[in-house]
Amino acid sequence: MSAFTRLGAGAIAGAVNSGATTALAVMEDTLARLAAYDAHQPQLWISRADPAALRAAAEAIDARVAAGERLPLAGVPYAAKDNIDVLGLETTAACPAFAYRPERSATVIERLEAAGAICVGKTNLDQFATGLVGTRSPYGIPRNAYNRDYVSGGSSSGSAVAVAAGLVGFALGTDTAGSGRVPAAFNHLVGFKPSKGRWSTRGLVPACRSLDCITVFTDALEDAALLDDVLAGFDPQDAWSRPRADIPLGGRRIGVPRRDQRQFFGDVEAEYLYERALAALAREHTLVEIDIAPLLEAARLLYGGPWVAERAAAILPLLERNPLAIDPVVREVIAPGSAMLATELWNGIYRLAELAREAEAMWGAVDALAFPTTGTSYRVAELREAPVALNSNLGFYTNFVNLLDMAAIAVSAGAKSNNTGFGITLIGPAHSDKALIALAGAYLTLAALPPLPPLDLGEHMDTVKLAVVGAHLEGMPLHWQLTSRGARSVGAATTAPNYRLYAMADTVPPKPALVHSEEGASIALEVYELDLASFGSFVAEVPPPLAIGTVTLADGSSVKGFVAEPRALTGAEDITHLGGWRAYIASR
Amino acid sequence: MSAFTRLGAGAIAGAVNSGATTALAVMEDTLARLAAYDAHQPQLWISRADPAALRAAAEAIDARVAAGERLPLAGVPYAAKDNIDVLGLETTAACPAFAYRPERSATVIERLEAAGAICVGKTNLDQFATGLVGTRSPYGIPRNAYNRDYVSGGSSSGSAVAVAAGLVGFALGTDTAGSGRVPAAFNHLVGFKPSKGRWSTRGLVPACRSLDCITVFTDALEDAALLDDVLAGFDPQDAWSRPRADIPLGGRRIGVPRRDQRQFFGDVEAEYLYERALAALAREHTLVEIDIAPLLEAARLLYGGPWVAERAAAILPLLERNPLAIDPVVREVIAPGSAMLATELWNGIYRLAELAREAEAMWGAVDALAFPTTGTSYRVAELREAPVALNSNLGFYTNFVNLLDMAAIAVSAGAKSNNTGFGITLIGPAHSDKALIALAGAYLTLAALPPLPPLDLGEHMDTVKLAVVGAHLEGMPLHWQLTSRGARSVGAATTAPNYRLYAMADTVPPKPALVHSEEGASIALEVYELDLASFGSFVAEVPPPLAIGTVTLADGSSVKGFVAEPRALTGAEDITHLGGWRAYIASR
Repeated sequence: MSAFTRLGAGAIAGAVNSGATTALAVMEDTLARLAAYDAHQPQLWISRADPAALRAAAEAIDARVAAGERLPLAGVPYAAKDNIDVLGLETTAACPAFAYRPERSATVIERLEAAGAICVGKTNLDQFATGLVGTRSPYGIPRNAYNRDYVSGGSSSGSAVAVAAGLVGFALGTDTAGSGRVPAAFNHLVGFKPSKGRWSTRGLVPACRSLDCITVFTDALEDAALLDDVLAGFDPQDAWSRPRADIPLGGRRIGVPRRDQRQFFGDVEAEYLYERALAALAREHTLVEIDIAPLLEAARLLYGGPWVAERAAAILPLLERNPLAIDPVVREVIAPGSAMLATELWNGIYRLAELAREAEAMWGAVDALAFPTTGTSYRVAELREAPVALNSNLGFYTNFVNLLDMAAIAVSAGAKSNNTGFGITLIGPAHSDKALIALAGAYLTLAALPPLPPLDLGEHMDTVKLAVVGAHLEGMPLHWQLTSRGARSVGAATTAPNYRLYAMADTVPPKPALVHSEEGASIALEVYELDLASFGSFVAEVPPPLAIGTVTLADGSSVKGFVAEPRALTGAEDITHLGGWRAYIASR
Repeated sequence: MSAFTRLGAGAIAGAVNSGATTALAVMEDTLARLAAYDAHQPQLWISRADPAALRAAAEAIDARVAAGERLPLAGVPYAAKDNIDVLGLETTAACPAFAYRPERSATVIERLEAAGAICVGKTNLDQFATGLVGTRSPYGIPRNAYNRDYVSGGSSSGSAVAVAAGLVGFALGTDTAGSGRVPAAFNHLVGFKPSKGRWSTRGLVPACRSLDCITVFTDALEDAALLDDVLAGFDPQDAWSRPRADIPLGGRRIGVPRRDQRQFFGDVEAEYLYERALAALAREHTLVEIDIAPLLEAARLLYGGPWVAERAAAILPLLERNPLAIDPVVREVIAPGSAMLATELWNGIYRLAELAREAEAMWGAVDALAFPTTGTSYRVAELREAPVALNSNLGFYTNFVNLLDMAAIAVSAGAKSNNTGFGITLIGPAHSDKALIALAGAYLTLAALPPLPPLDLGEHMDTVKLAVVGAHLEGMPLHWQLTSRGARSVGAATTAPNYRLYAMADTVPPKPALVHSEEGASIALEVYELDLASFGSFVAEVPPPLAIGTVTLADGSSVKGFVAEPRALTGAEDITHLGGWRAYIASR
């Protein structure tokens, strides 16, 4: 099995072009990585190309290189978010009822193929690219590559994880409200969102057609620049395409949100990392605090105004004929758009035009912005509880960018203690793309970030296994405390053979105390699995002298489980010889 | 009384700046012209500035010139369409219930005043600038200055007539669907519609805010160029403003509609004049027939699609709270917009973006377009019968221009036999304004048009006065044939004293025959006024031996009236001595 070291598109292409390796060798390595990571997060893919076809494509590249061609992406394996048409694979937009087989690849795919890149598969996403979390898909929830308790970020969830895990040299995402930036932040990636119209969107399932951008996730900045060179350019078949233009970013004045307007949603670690990023920038730039109220007002138009109707327009037939085929959270977000009035939209267009004027004036005071990419991040379990509100929090610093015709690049600003990424986004006016990439390079040099934390390849952590030995066993008086929390039974088991079991004195209902002892026995128990939050609330209700500690099972593994304080044994009856609480109850 | 010779803004300013005349003398002449033309068409104005204030303003200009200032529009009197804010005058948009007193002048007014121009009044318009006819106003119907049976064109009706009649040096109009071009064509004027955003629209009552342009009517092209120099430029207070830019028009390829797509609505005279204009152009340009289907499809979005909702958005409070205050035809056009869905608008925006791409591609094949401004023109009476359909016909060649971000200049292409104007419009991409004015100059040189026809200062011709003497008198059996046609009573009268009246034999109901005779008397009659169309249908039903001829009244004037063929007298009874039919009936 290959290590999941990250790949670089330019490095691969250079090695293939120079003959240091072959596209076929790269593809074999890629196929091995894909198979290996499938053991951890198969759900980051919605479909994958046939390995034989991938090998044939790689051999075709090798033949071209052997014939003397030099291709900027020679043999580079990549992934495409599954709302971008790739000939030969279904396009689902993460909605099976919407799926279709495209008759042609998107323009960006055609350009990538012409440059020698090979698409290995289509990645999972928040359905119809509506979300910043990655939890809104019937194809499963791609999780943060560095801590799978946490969301990967979305909507380009699978693409970000595929690059973070070193499965591909780069991956295409899309970005309407922040979908190409938020997952980059959470997974320690570069997320480049070009100016609107710089990269063709022909062949993209629209979220908000007037705002959608195709984006790229890479490990390194240079690869974002390389991809931009391949993909930027006018496409006469895309009504939103604009000719490539490159404007410089004037000086070194970097706009940051006024201190009282910053919002980290209580995440002091994120706040600290942002301060540290600004301190790095300040060594060579002048930080200018700006009033972000106009930006926030523009942002609210996206999910609180008539741009919701733009999302509805994109899936109107499905919304009208088969609404239950839509993810319930996505439906809840989009459906109100189908009833909004055109007059509301006109008024929204007018307000946006005024806000765009204020934003333009801002570029007189600052050359670029350096905002947190997100103010915080969340666990998957937390998203389940508040799927709309927490998602909105993640868009606080991203939603306005496309509405106000800006370019953006999200880069890492360090790891949190839970190993997930915190990032900043550098934002400039339309056509500042190349200058933004250069600014990001300057920032990364100043920031001198520590090495990446390890990928999360361990146990899936956002549920907890809990062993119960007494009143919580199935059929016992407190079993409801598990069922009411949605606990799932993992099965019956026994402890390692070094526990003693006591019936405590004077407890109602009767309860045992499990005590570790070198001179013990294997005690019968049942193992349940709970969400973190449910587990937490369960633990909160455990009365003394009982406690939740760690219990070793007969197979040597450890789970959380009931243990007891020493005082539990006062007046208690040793029932170890019965082998379990159920037998004791039966014996009474 | 001054003659209504047309004025030139540049000529006036030159004379004032050079001391050849004074602004005050110009203003005195203007006030005299205004008073004189009030005898003909007072309804072209909604409000006028106080003469004392106008004289004071002129004296202030004279003082500045005396102090050495040279002002590009020194002392030039002008008119502003009454949907443009002018401090000190009400803004009505031709809707009294909507009227307000602005706290500040529109940006264009401020710039004109700074350049030395003086606003003499606010002109009538199709209410809320919704129309191309000039008939949709509670302030009366400005009529074509050259034949008052015909519409002036709209919505900038009063402004066009004010310039055509030589009352002002120029007049501001506005243009969303063609309102700055159609009245120019009908009144032999230059109508310059700049690129969107070139002239600020701050202080304009919106029709479709995303499309509205302020425009100018002038007698001469040079004055349009002069006004553009004064008014073009970025206005940070207008969200739709764009920095002034001037692109050249490549070569000499002029696009004209494919022959089978031309539409003159049966007006062979217009078709002939268009052919003649093209023949003139062809002497120095290459005419290229183009497929105008994409242009026509874009045009249909304006009144057949969600841009109607943009008009509704502009007057939504009035539409909801006081709909009866809106002109019924305007209400019929706009009201459906308040129920349109935002999803429809999004789909319209997408379709327009695609059509804009096709239009852009067109600029690769031609440098400018030369289209008829309108395919035909109509009588006021015809508009009354079909107010929406005929209005739509007038927009056939104009509606697409603003939607597709083009600049346009309407110029004369000759007079019809009814003295109204036929025009062509030269159309180019955004920012081709100055180049279009130059192209229009080249065309006018080639066209070598004959002098202007005379202004229509005679009897108002589109109603007819009809004298009735018998069964159509009030209270008589056939009077309903008048009332059912909306005939208005002018009053009772008598013929000149040289008529004889006979009671015809065997007619049901009994009818007289009025016969001119040197040996006659004055016969009692009643005079009614009918629209031309009503009059025509009335005449069509007159049975023999009666006929409609000309009857001389006692005051020497002539009106149409019942006369009789000679056979009417066969067996008839001479009742001249009774002095009238009413006396005869009473005597039976």
